[in-house]
Amino acid sequence: MSKIEDVVATAIENTAGAAERRRRTGGGRGGDRGKGRKSPATLRYRSILNTQSPSLILSDEGLEAIHDASLSVLEQVGLDFMLPEARALLAAAGAQVVAGTERVRMDRGLIMELVAKAPGPFTLHARNPERNVAIGGPAMAFAQVASAPYCSDRDNGRRTGTQEDFRNLVKLAQSYDIIHMTGGYPVEPTDLHASVRHLDCLSDLVKLTDKPYHAYSLGKQRNLDALEIARIGRGVSAEQMEAEPSLFTIINASSPLRYDAPMLQGIIEMSSHNQVVVITPFTLAGAMAPVTVAGALVQQNAEALAGIAFTQVVRPGAPVVYGGFTSNVDMKSGAPAFGTPEYMKAVMAGGQLARRYGLPYRTSNTCAANTLDAQSAYESMMSLWGLVQGGGNFIMHAAGWMEGGLTASFEKFVMDVDMLQMVAEFLVPLDTSPDALAMDAISEVGPGGHYFGTAHTLSRYETAFYSPILSDWRNFESWSLAGQPTTFDHANKVWKETLASYEQPPLDAAVSEELDAFVARRKEEGGVPTDF
Amino acid sequence: MSKIEDVVATAIENTAGAAERRRRTGGGRGGDRGKGRKSPATLRYRSILNTQSPSLILSDEGLEAIHDASLSVLEQVGLDFMLPEARALLAAAGAQVVAGTERVRMDRGLIMELVAKAPGPFTLHARNPERNVAIGGPAMAFAQVASAPYCSDRDNGRRTGTQEDFRNLVKLAQSYDIIHMTGGYPVEPTDLHASVRHLDCLSDLVKLTDKPYHAYSLGKQRNLDALEIARIGRGVSAEQMEAEPSLFTIINASSPLRYDAPMLQGIIEMSSHNQVVVITPFTLAGAMAPVTVAGALVQQNAEALAGIAFTQVVRPGAPVVYGGFTSNVDMKSGAPAFGTPEYMKAVMAGGQLARRYGLPYRTSNTCAANTLDAQSAYESMMSLWGLVQGGGNFIMHAAGWMEGGLTASFEKFVMDVDMLQMVAEFLVPLDTSPDALAMDAISEVGPGGHYFGTAHTLSRYETAFYSPILSDWRNFESWSLAGQPTTFDHANKVWKETLASYEQPPLDAAVSEELDAFVARRKEEGGVPTDF
Repeated sequence: MSKIEDVVATAIENTAGAAERRRRTGGGRGGDRGKGRKSPATLRYRSILNTQSPSLILSDEGLEAIHDASLSVLEQVGLDFMLPEARALLAAAGAQVVAGTERVRMDRGLIMELVAKAPGPFTLHARNPERNVAIGGPAMAFAQVASAPYCSDRDNGRRTGTQEDFRNLVKLAQSYDIIHMTGGYPVEPTDLHASVRHLDCLSDLVKLTDKPYHAYSLGKQRNLDALEIARIGRGVSAEQMEAEPSLFTIINASSPLRYDAPMLQGIIEMSSHNQVVVITPFTLAGAMAPVTVAGALVQQNAEALAGIAFTQVVRPGAPVVYGGFTSNVDMKSGAPAFGTPEYMKAVMAGGQLARRYGLPYRTSNTCAANTLDAQSAYESMMSLWGLVQGGGNFIMHAAGWMEGGLTASFEKFVMDVDMLQMVAEFLVPLDTSPDALAMDAISEVGPGGHYFGTAHTLSRYETAFYSPILSDWRNFESWSLAGQPTTFDHANKVWKETLASYEQPPLDAAVSEELDAFVARRKEEGGVPTDF
Repeated sequence: MSKIEDVVATAIENTAGAAERRRRTGGGRGGDRGKGRKSPATLRYRSILNTQSPSLILSDEGLEAIHDASLSVLEQVGLDFMLPEARALLAAAGAQVVAGTERVRMDRGLIMELVAKAPGPFTLHARNPERNVAIGGPAMAFAQVASAPYCSDRDNGRRTGTQEDFRNLVKLAQSYDIIHMTGGYPVEPTDLHASVRHLDCLSDLVKLTDKPYHAYSLGKQRNLDALEIARIGRGVSAEQMEAEPSLFTIINASSPLRYDAPMLQGIIEMSSHNQVVVITPFTLAGAMAPVTVAGALVQQNAEALAGIAFTQVVRPGAPVVYGGFTSNVDMKSGAPAFGTPEYMKAVMAGGQLARRYGLPYRTSNTCAANTLDAQSAYESMMSLWGLVQGGGNFIMHAAGWMEGGLTASFEKFVMDVDMLQMVAEFLVPLDTSPDALAMDAISEVGPGGHYFGTAHTLSRYETAFYSPILSDWRNFESWSLAGQPTTFDHANKVWKETLASYEQPPLDAAVSEELDAFVARRKEEGGVPTDF
C-alpha cells in the first residue's frame, strides 16, 4: 500500500513543470473580458499540496474527549448494522451482536485494532495515469458536486436533471484541472431508468473524462457492474485493478448510529476488491445528531470509526477515507445550514480526528444559498477556509453545490473553480529568494519612483499574480458602461464558453468497444431489477 | 504602558457575561425575516480574542530574509522625510541625513533600538469606558470603512458623500458591537468646507458614537483640534488624556520610501501627546512596490520600520501599530486588486513581521468589487481569513469597503458585519465539556432516532448556533414565493431598519456644551486656512 512518501511523490510528479506550463498557457480571463476566453484546459492544477500546517480547533484534551466519548458510544450504545452478512462478519471479528437484533457493540480495543489496519494515504488511479490522484497526507483533491436531484443555470432555471445535464456537468469537470475527480453523478439524470442508469452514467464517466470517478453503493450488482466498467475503462486485468485502487464509493451512515444494507453491501464489494471506501456520516447537529457541535462530532466519530473498522474486517489494508460532514440546522426553522461558523469548527475538528487515526480526510465545499449571490460565496469561502485550515484531503462537492446539495449549479461550478484556484495559488509557497526580494529594483527605483517599467517588473508581469476567471476589476465607470455585470453574469458566460470548447479525452478504440459491448449486454439482461 | 496581560484583561472584562447577554438578547434576524428585526444593539461582540494560533506563510528563514533586506534598504537606499523638523529630530537621534536632500539613512542597530522602545499591546480609550478597545496580543478590533470619496446604497446609487451620508454611516457603526471603532470618515462629506470639515466631523464622532475614533493627519492644526475634541469628549484633563491613549491616526507612507510633511507632522503631534499612531505603507506590488510579493513586503517593512522608529524618536514609549497593506495590481490593466491569494499571503506575512517586532498589527478587510455580488463576498472572505490566520489586531475597513476603497457601501457594511460576526463566532472555543459531548442524549436517542425533542436539544436550541443577519436559509420554493431575494436585497432592508432604530449614546450635557463652544470658537477663527 502507498506510503505518505509515495503520495507526495505522486503529487509532486504531477505538479512538476506546472509553473512552466502556467507561463506557457497563461491564466484565466482577467483583462480579456468580453474578448472570448482562452481554453481552460491547462495543466496548472493537477496536484495541490497543502503547505500550511493544519490549524487546531480542539486542544489535545478536547480531541481525546471526543475520541473517548465516541468509543464509549460504540461500546455502550452500539450501532445497527442492517445486513445479516455484515453482522456475521463483525461477530467473527470479535464484535458483540445483540441476539435477535441488528445491534452491534464493539469494545475500544477491537475498534482501534481494526482502524490501525487501514493504510493511510494512497493513490487513486485514473484511466489516464497523469490524472492519478494522491489521497491523504498533505495532498488535496477536489471532486465535483455530486448527487443533486436538480440542476440550474441562469438561462434555463432550476429543473430536474437529465442525461444531457449530467453530461454537460461532467464535461465541465473534465475542462478544469483543479477538479481532480467527479464525485458521483453531478445531477441525477432522471430520464434514464434506474435499472440501467448506472450503466449509462458510468460509461459516460469513462468516455467524457479521464479522471477518477465514483460508484454509488445501491446494491451488490451495481457495485459489480461499476467495478467491471472501471476495469475495462483502465484497460487492465482484474489483478492490476485490485492492486491499484481505481474507483471510490461514498458510504453514508443512516444517522444516528445505523448503516443500511446497500451501504454495507457497498463496503463488502468495494473493500473486498481493494477499492476506495469513503465513510461519511452526515450528522446535522440539532436534527439527526446532538445539538452541540461536540456532541455531533462524538456521533460522527462513532459512526465513522464503526464504518472504517468494518472495511478492515472485510479486507485488512483496503483503502479507506475518514469522512466528516457535521453541520447545524437553523433552530428557528429546522432548515439545514452550511458554511456556518459551526460548520467550520466541525470541519477542522474532523481533520484533527482523521489525523489522529492516520487516515485521509474527506470533507466538503458547502453552501445553503439558492442563487449565485453573496451568500453563496461567503458560505463556500467559510467551507473552503475551514477545510484548508483543517487539513482536508478529499474534497467532495468542491464545485457546483447549491441549496445544501439539492441543486448542481452551472454558474456556481465556475465560481467554485475560481475559488479553488485561489486556494491553490495561496498554497504555492511564497518565494523569498534573493531575486524575489527585489533589492536591486528597490535601489533602482528609490524614493518617489514607480515600478511599472523596471526590468524586474517587465520580466514578471504576465505571470506574477493569479488571474481570476470571474473577478471584475474594472473601475466603476468602465463596469457601468459594460452594463454593471455581476459575478453571476460572468459565470453564466464562462460555463457556456467552456462547454463549447470541451474536448473529449482520447480513449483506445478497443476499450471503447469492450465498454459498449459490456453495457449493451448488461442492458439486454435488464440491468438491475427495480420494482417500478 | 499596558502589558499584554492588561490587554487580555481588558478584552476578557469586556467579554464577561457576553454569553449570558447573548442568550438574553437573542441573535440577528434568522427566522424572523420580514417580521422586523430585533435591536442590533447587543453587548455580544465587544471584545474578540483570536483563539487560533497564527498560521505561518513564511519560514523562519523567509521571515529573516525579508527583515534583513528591509534593513539593508534603510541603510543603503534610505527614505525621504519631507519635513525639515523630522529630519532634524532623526539626525539628533543618530540617523544620517544626506546634506541638501530629504534623504535619511538609518543603520540597522539604530532602527532596531528605536523599534524596541515601542510599547507593544495597549488599550485605546473611548469616552464610554465599556468601549475601550484592547489593541495587540490576541485581541482583534474592527474599525468601519474609512476615507471613501463615494458612498452607495441600492436606493440612491453611487454618489459623492455628504454630511448626511457621513452621519448615517457613523450611526450604523454605533449600532453593531462587532464594530469597535470608526476608522476615519467612512465617507468624505464633501458638502462641508475643508477648512472646518474636521471640526464638524470630529464633533459628530463624539456625539453619535461612544467608540474610539480616528483623526486625519492633515497638518498640525487639525491634529491639535482633534486632540482637544477628544479630550473634551472624554471629559478628562490633558494629563489623563496623555496617560490614556484615546485617539488614533493612520500614517501612510508616500510609497515608495517617502513620508510627506503632513504625515510627519501627524506623528510629531500624536506621538508627542502619547496618542496612537498606525504606520501603514500602502505597497501595491507591480505599481509603487516591486512586482513580487516578497519584494513588496521588503518595501512595506522598510517603510513601516522607518515610521515606527520615528514615533519613538518623537517620544519613546508612544503607542504605535505596525500596519501592512500590500496587494497586487491586475497586470493586464494596472487596476488594483484586493482579496486575492497574493493579498492573503502578504497579510499573513505582515503579521509575522509585526510579531517579530512585538507590535500590534493593523490590516484591512478589502475587496475590489463594484456591487454586492458574489465577488464582493469572496474577496472580503479571502481578506478576513488572511487576517484571522495572520493574527491581525487592528482591522481597518472592516465593514463597508467597496471598489478598492473608493466607495462606502451601506449594504456591504451590513454584509461585513454579518461576516465579522461569523468570524467572532468561529473564534469562540469549541465546548468539549461532558455536557457538550452529549453522551446522555446519544444514549437516549440511540440508533435510528432523532434529536428534535430531547431535553439536551430543547434546553439549547434557541442559542445553540450563530443566527446570521442576512443568510437566507429558506428552501427554494419558499424563497421563490418571497420573490427570490438576494443578499443585496436583504442587506438593503437591514441597514434601513438599523438606522431607524439607532439610538444616540448618552453624553454629559456639560461635555456637549464644551464641545459645541470649542467648535463654534474654532469656526469663528476660520477653522484651518485652505487655499480654496
